[in-house]
Amino acid sequence: MSVSKKIQRIAVLTSGGDAPGMNAALRAVVLAADHYGIEVIAFRHGYQGLLDNEYLTMKPKDVLHVLQYSGTIIKSARCQRFKEESAATEAAANLEALNIDALVIIGGDGSFRGADHLANHWQGQIIGVPGTIDNDLYGTDATIGYATAVTIAMDALDKIRDTADAMDRVFIVEVMGREAGFIGLGSATAAGAERVVLPELQKDKPLTVSALVKHIQRVKEIRGEGSYVMVLSEHQWPGGAVALAEQLDAEYDLPCRPCLLGHIQRGGPPAPADRILASELGVHAIELILQGKHRVMAGMRANQCVDVPLRDTWEKKNPLASNLLRIQHEIFNPVKKNPRMNTQ
Amino acid sequence: MSVSKKIQRIAVLTSGGDAPGMNAALRAVVLAADHYGIEVIAFRHGYQGLLDNEYLTMKPKDVLHVLQYSGTIIKSARCQRFKEESAATEAAANLEALNIDALVIIGGDGSFRGADHLANHWQGQIIGVPGTIDNDLYGTDATIGYATAVTIAMDALDKIRDTADAMDRVFIVEVMGREAGFIGLGSATAAGAERVVLPELQKDKPLTVSALVKHIQRVKEIRGEGSYVMVLSEHQWPGGAVALAEQLDAEYDLPCRPCLLGHIQRGGPPAPADRILASELGVHAIELILQGKHRVMAGMRANQCVDVPLRDTWEKKNPLASNLLRIQHEIFNPVKKNPRMNTQ
Amino acid sequence: MSVSKKIQRIAVLTSGGDAPGMNAALRAVVLAADHYGIEVIAFRHGYQGLLDNEYLTMKPKDVLHVLQYSGTIIKSARCQRFKEESAATEAAANLEALNIDALVIIGGDGSFRGADHLANHWQGQIIGVPGTIDNDLYGTDATIGYATAVTIAMDALDKIRDTADAMDRVFIVEVMGREAGFIGLGSATAAGAERVVLPELQKDKPLTVSALVKHIQRVKEIRGEGSYVMVLSEHQWPGGAVALAEQLDAEYDLPCRPCLLGHIQRGGPPAPADRILASELGVHAIELILQGKHRVMAGMRANQCVDVPLRDTWEKKNPLASNLLRIQHEIFNPVKKNPRMNTQ
Amino acid sequence: MSVSKKIQRIAVLTSGGDAPGMNAALRAVVLAADHYGIEVIAFRHGYQGLLDNEYLTMKPKDVLHVLQYSGTIIKSARCQRFKEESAATEAAANLEALNIDALVIIGGDGSFRGADHLANHWQGQIIGVPGTIDNDLYGTDATIGYATAVTIAMDALDKIRDTADAMDRVFIVEVMGREAGFIGLGSATAAGAERVVLPELQKDKPLTVSALVKHIQRVKEIRGEGSYVMVLSEHQWPGGAVALAEQLDAEYDLPCRPCLLGHIQRGGPPAPADRILASELGVHAIELILQGKHRVMAGMRANQCVDVPLRDTWEKKNPLASNLLRIQHEIFNPVKKNPRMNTQ
Repeated sequence: MSVSKKIQRIAVLTSGGDAPGMNAALRAVVLAADHYGIEVIAFRHGYQGLLDNEYLTMKPKDVLHVLQYSGTIIKSARCQRFKEESAATEAAANLEALNIDALVIIGGDGSFRGADHLANHWQGQIIGVPGTIDNDLYGTDATIGYATAVTIAMDALDKIRDTADAMDRVFIVEVMGREAGFIGLGSATAAGAERVVLPELQKDKPLTVSALVKHIQRVKEIRGEGSYVMVLSEHQWPGGAVALAEQLDAEYDLPCRPCLLGHIQRGGPPAPADRILASELGVHAIELILQGKHRVMAGMRANQCVDVPLRDTWEKKNPLASNLLRIQHEIFNPVKKNPRMNTQ
Repeated sequence: MSVSKKIQRIAVLTSGGDAPGMNAALRAVVLAADHYGIEVIAFRHGYQGLLDNEYLTMKPKDVLHVLQYSGTIIKSARCQRFKEESAATEAAANLEALNIDALVIIGGDGSFRGADHLANHWQGQIIGVPGTIDNDLYGTDATIGYATAVTIAMDALDKIRDTADAMDRVFIVEVMGREAGFIGLGSATAAGAERVVLPELQKDKPLTVSALVKHIQRVKEIRGEGSYVMVLSEHQWPGGAVALAEQLDAEYDLPCRPCLLGHIQRGGPPAPADRILASELGVHAIELILQGKHRVMAGMRANQCVDVPLRDTWEKKNPLASNLLRIQHEIFNPVKKNPRMNTQ
Repeated sequence: MSVSKKIQRIAVLTSGGDAPGMNAALRAVVLAADHYGIEVIAFRHGYQGLLDNEYLTMKPKDVLHVLQYSGTIIKSARCQRFKEESAATEAAANLEALNIDALVIIGGDGSFRGADHLANHWQGQIIGVPGTIDNDLYGTDATIGYATAVTIAMDALDKIRDTADAMDRVFIVEVMGREAGFIGLGSATAAGAERVVLPELQKDKPLTVSALVKHIQRVKEIRGEGSYVMVLSEHQWPGGAVALAEQLDAEYDLPCRPCLLGHIQRGGPPAPADRILASELGVHAIELILQGKHRVMAGMRANQCVDVPLRDTWEKKNPLASNLLRIQHEIFNPVKKNPRMNTQ
Repeated sequence: MSVSKKIQRIAVLTSGGDAPGMNAALRAVVLAADHYGIEVIAFRHGYQGLLDNEYLTMKPKDVLHVLQYSGTIIKSARCQRFKEESAATEAAANLEALNIDALVIIGGDGSFRGADHLANHWQGQIIGVPGTIDNDLYGTDATIGYATAVTIAMDALDKIRDTADAMDRVFIVEVMGREAGFIGLGSATAAGAERVVLPELQKDKPLTVSALVKHIQRVKEIRGEGSYVMVLSEHQWPGGAVALAEQLDAEYDLPCRPCLLGHIQRGGPPAPADRILASELGVHAIELILQGKHRVMAGMRANQCVDVPLRDTWEKKNPLASNLLRIQHEIFNPVKKNPRMNTQ
């Protein structure tokens, strides 16, 4: 490792919507920093704490078993003011006064934009760690929190299936991900949902109630009796699952029940994949600092630690898994009759 | 056991909203019947199956490990037509044609009203088994399904707490129980919710937004930073949690997130209390039949198997636990300042 | 409430094996004390902390959301030395020096014996709160921790069933409860285990390998193919589940897999029943202090808060539920062929 | 897709130790076959069913929601006899008599050796799908079942941590994986275990009690009070976790508790990663058949579906993740004092 200068003291913060595994990432940052003889302070409440100089020193004993828990022990927040010029200069002044050599930002794209903004006003190294359930950051195969969100949504869908099957009912379950369908596609595939509506697909072929009713009827025809469970990404229908369910009932006399998972997708024990990813990326962030890296996000590609320019993380996009889309729509739940391709 | 006549063949059905533990009750009915040398048939889809003569023979091997699963393997349904006179006579004719000596109904108050209606037209014994998550049947300390619903709601509230605390946020979580606050009170107590709104309390002192805002502010004052989680029973606010959250935000600039648990409260592995209760009551139902009992519900009072007249189950009411209400409202989350009672 | 004298300051400690819900009990003690204007200090590490004067002040903010977690934030320990005369006098001196009016002990029978010993040397009020997964304290329908232990054991048995059924295998799962079979009986009933071996039953009719083999064969005969799961309370077989499984394999060529759940039965999120019970008993403990009660345990009987003399809690015994034993052994998994009782 | 001949009928079986996600793989095979107009039969009990001609026809409705459950609805078994020459010829005759064009084997390395053996005697196409919790098959980044096993082991370790921390105790938790440390390393990293003993590491530097005691003492020195949790892969110590715990206690007066997770690692709801992987590989297996592939395993590398020669799957090895080993041993829980590398 070629090291540009001696790193003595770094800061860390969690910013934006919290994600399961943020605590594991924080723990890894603190343990790795301790290993390399670096002091760590943590700003509380994200960028707000950076502006308010609200911080505390973090030692290994402060983070020992926090990887079991979702949320973030140093609190997170959305900070509108941080977009302003003056905020970045204030933050830079605070970091300099505290002799901070590098800053680790655990958060999503909004937080990384903030980091980039700050980098225009501060000389220290800035490293991003991808913490968001939405999985919508370029430069890493997965973000910290995504695996847990899928697990919780799948668990809810499993529970819905039990009751849906008992009553031969139709359900619409609204999951998080207003601009990215990763949680929707992952949980729908894992739970065997009959239908999934995702932002990426809405652009080309938006959901219509009549098409939905046709699909429901077709599935019922094929299967005789049974349930129909649809996963709806948030913000893909005016009024969400509740309104769509009412419409199905009112317009088509098709009784339908809604479920709005909301923030339960952000809590509970983080999934192993999130804890392991967070542990690797937290250590990697410290080692990127020691390598003199700046304005990059620590990521994981094909099981290898990588780094990508911060700007790429929001300017480029990871596509949805096309194979999963194909399986969901063409193989398992086709809208049209099976083509019986094996007929040559 | 004094037995009025030889019981040879009984029928069982699950009716109304499904409840976790219905399968365990069915299993217990089938295993106990087998033990006593009684044949069992099960009507599918509740009373609808009784009208349609849709049934199957149930042997021990058909129910061996179903106690692990929610839902009901013989399906349930709500049957509007069963309220009619003609339906009861048709059902009676079907039961007679099949030589059924007794009928076990696993369901809630609506199902028991149907059973009572049928009893006016059929001579066989009718035994109810209390299966509903709402816990709103008189004559038993708990209904089958209630413990699971509380567990799931509590688990969701725990997850909400993680993220609420990370962001110092207010949440409104809507739980089931439109006419009975058992799930709301149980889950709120178990999860340490700051506030709970229940149908029973709404009658005397309905929720107002301004009182809610005052309570939120008071809690924030006392605790400094932190989260505020409110449990809202369904149908206690127009538009539910979603509408109330929007109102808090719009009228009081108090950001607030809603969560609508819906039917996830009816799925997943049934809680041990539900499985054990269902096992005891399923056996008890068979033994009540052998004792010649009729038009009663099998219940559990202070850990003893009891039976109560079917009509009592909906005409009388179990009250909410007054001690839990007192603890929730007066001790843990008082609206007014603590009275410091220890001052004499 | 008639109050003997003004209570200003109390102490609390958790002692012996930790139990899920101890934190919820601690929280209730602290919140209720605060409500009544009483200061609380907590000794860490049980009686050891009392001897070492290791304590901290507890305020509501210290316990806000701890009810979600198992373990005990004030630590527990077993303290051999506390049985000695000198220990009790030292403890009494410490309590007096700290102006403690009353002491709340959250623990099991060993801890209550310690409390009784201390009561011979100290004038303050002593109140026990039943915290043990074993459920082996007289004077309360359930102890704090028991419901969680049964939930975890049942969950493990469910998982075992999945694989046992896939391979038509025999399993022996060892659960906690060396002197009391509550966890064994509860989890076996909830999971539909084919067999359960409990300390209470061992006295009259100890387990033999040949009888076990006969039962396994009989169950296989009746069911054709399938799994056989046995719940074994700890200390009921030399070498436990591991040794018994080896013996079945070696002596009878009957492949069998062991599983030793151990302390996982003490962790994870406490079950709702434990959190609710702990909340009620924690408050009740404070109110018993205000009523001038001494040397009693706070308990719950038929959903009513009660108190019983400390000595009764270990000198008397709650029996196992005889109805569950009957169902398990005679109705669901009889050793002999069904008697077909319905033959008169 | 170039297709060698028209595929009309295939068979599928699950073999060897069952793995969570086998049902999801079976479902995907059946749904994809239906999509392409191919009939499916399933042999029950693995190769034994193939020898006994015990099979059933599988239609989409038979597999609809089985992806929720562990185990395998078509049962699995280990079949010693299948290693013999005569068994392979019998199996080939059965497959020919049933007009089977291709056989899908869902299982681990033993099952794939059996498949290879069969391929010497039968002309039909043979495709493997990697179903084993051990993750020890070359040619795929993960096997079906591995993610669930890690989740369950981590969950158990979390529970152990709760009680270990409450009592400042040492625990040894034995996990599956006698020849491969994937479950051990994954769960230890995810749960923040202080120590992990894996088969791969044992070869070079076998565990000694004295080294273990030193590490425990070192961790206690650094942290003051607290718990120490060790993950032990099965078969890495004579007598396993139980014997090692006794030795620590007897020889070093270091109280220590064992836990033997055993087969609970194979049950419960499969993790989303296993269900998604199984869905992709089940479909891929059918498409490999249509492409005329033979004697290959369907695998997933860097999120791409691949196929590898069956023999490679056991002759080559996936290494443990070296970065996780480094983090576990050198960064988070170093045996020696931190080198403070940041000192140049």
